[in-house]
Amino acid sequence: MMHDKGLVIVLSGFSGAGKGTIMKHLLEAHPTDYNLSISATTREMRAGEKDGREYFFKTKEEFDKMIENDELLEYATFNGNFYGTPKAYVEQLIEHKKDVILEIETHGALKVKEMFPDALLLFTMPPSAAELKNRLVGRGTETEEVIAQRLAISNKEADIMEKYDYLIVNDTLEKAVDQVHNIIQAEHFKVSRNSTAIKEMKEQLKIFERSN
Amino acid sequence: MMHDKGLVIVLSGFSGAGKGTIMKHLLEAHPTDYNLSISATTREMRAGEKDGREYFFKTKEEFDKMIENDELLEYATFNGNFYGTPKAYVEQLIEHKKDVILEIETHGALKVKEMFPDALLLFTMPPSAAELKNRLVGRGTETEEVIAQRLAISNKEADIMEKYDYLIVNDTLEKAVDQVHNIIQAEHFKVSRNSTAIKEMKEQLKIFERSN
Repeated sequence: MMHDKGLVIVLSGFSGAGKGTIMKHLLEAHPTDYNLSISATTREMRAGEKDGREYFFKTKEEFDKMIENDELLEYATFNGNFYGTPKAYVEQLIEHKKDVILEIETHGALKVKEMFPDALLLFTMPPSAAELKNRLVGRGTETEEVIAQRLAISNKEADIMEKYDYLIVNDTLEKAVDQVHNIIQAEHFKVSRNSTAIKEMKEQLKIFERSN
Repeated sequence: MMHDKGLVIVLSGFSGAGKGTIMKHLLEAHPTDYNLSISATTREMRAGEKDGREYFFKTKEEFDKMIENDELLEYATFNGNFYGTPKAYVEQLIEHKKDVILEIETHGALKVKEMFPDALLLFTMPPSAAELKNRLVGRGTETEEVIAQRLAISNKEADIMEKYDYLIVNDTLEKAVDQVHNIIQAEHFKVSRNSTAIKEMKEQLKIFERSN
């Protein structure tokens, strides 16, 4: 039983909801099941980093060219640098029936869903709104302004949350990692993701009936 | 984190694909997670059976009345007796956020989906068409006519299969039982099944933002 293609999985979530940690532990726990999408970036390579491992390192001109040629699924700027998801790398993986995970913010997620309507969108949240507030304001080291900004962003993310497929409730890390893994594995058995196998089964059954 | 309601889960599948065995082991492995829908029937109670446990035992008049009053989700006849799924029992369970499983054939399944559009439809199949053929013809004790009949039924079921949500591949029993359990548990975290929790989270976030 093989599904038609690998899955494009997008993991987003509220700031402080722990999506980075979940991702890291998921990949450690299931190294052969999932592939991490590697982003392109214009930021400088740091000591210990390797081109094509942490990032595909690009000049501003190369990055602009990728945008122009529609080679990026989505891109965004952060601290004056560009970050984007190369389309070809993701397409190669899913054609080879490999699942690929993208950790990106909500606007990028919607762009990915436009390009890959079968993408699986997962939204990470703390177990309650009170807990979310704690994580946003709780460190006690932030100014009122930074907190207000974070709350405003979270409010916008909450509006987009409803366009996601599944919620990941990050209560304990271990449970959240298991939950992400179970959801992805369950999705492989969706009827809509197994049209080839179903078609074959139907054709075989028709042949048996005729030859019986 | 609580989903809005319990799930209505329908388990169907090809004859000989082992759905009855999967169901039995699923309920044994997770006795507090799932409730089995109890059917109404006009067949006679047998020794050791109890009304309201194996079945709700009804006279033909009572059963007709249930049909008339639209109290059944679906019904069918088998060996001259009527069997049906009482709607009220299922509704009570899901309102109390309890998952209820119905083991019914494909036509009944579609009726349930009409009544409960959120119902989760699972279709059990052997790992390959060849294996399905083996299970349909393999015992060597059946006449050509019986085999032809089974193949015709399987062909009709295969056409309806595409209206189901997930495939359950019964390769080994243990894996199939785990698969059913994982799919149901994953479904609980679907955004569309958690509208109440999402609404609350959004309201709380708005209050925090205003009061900050």
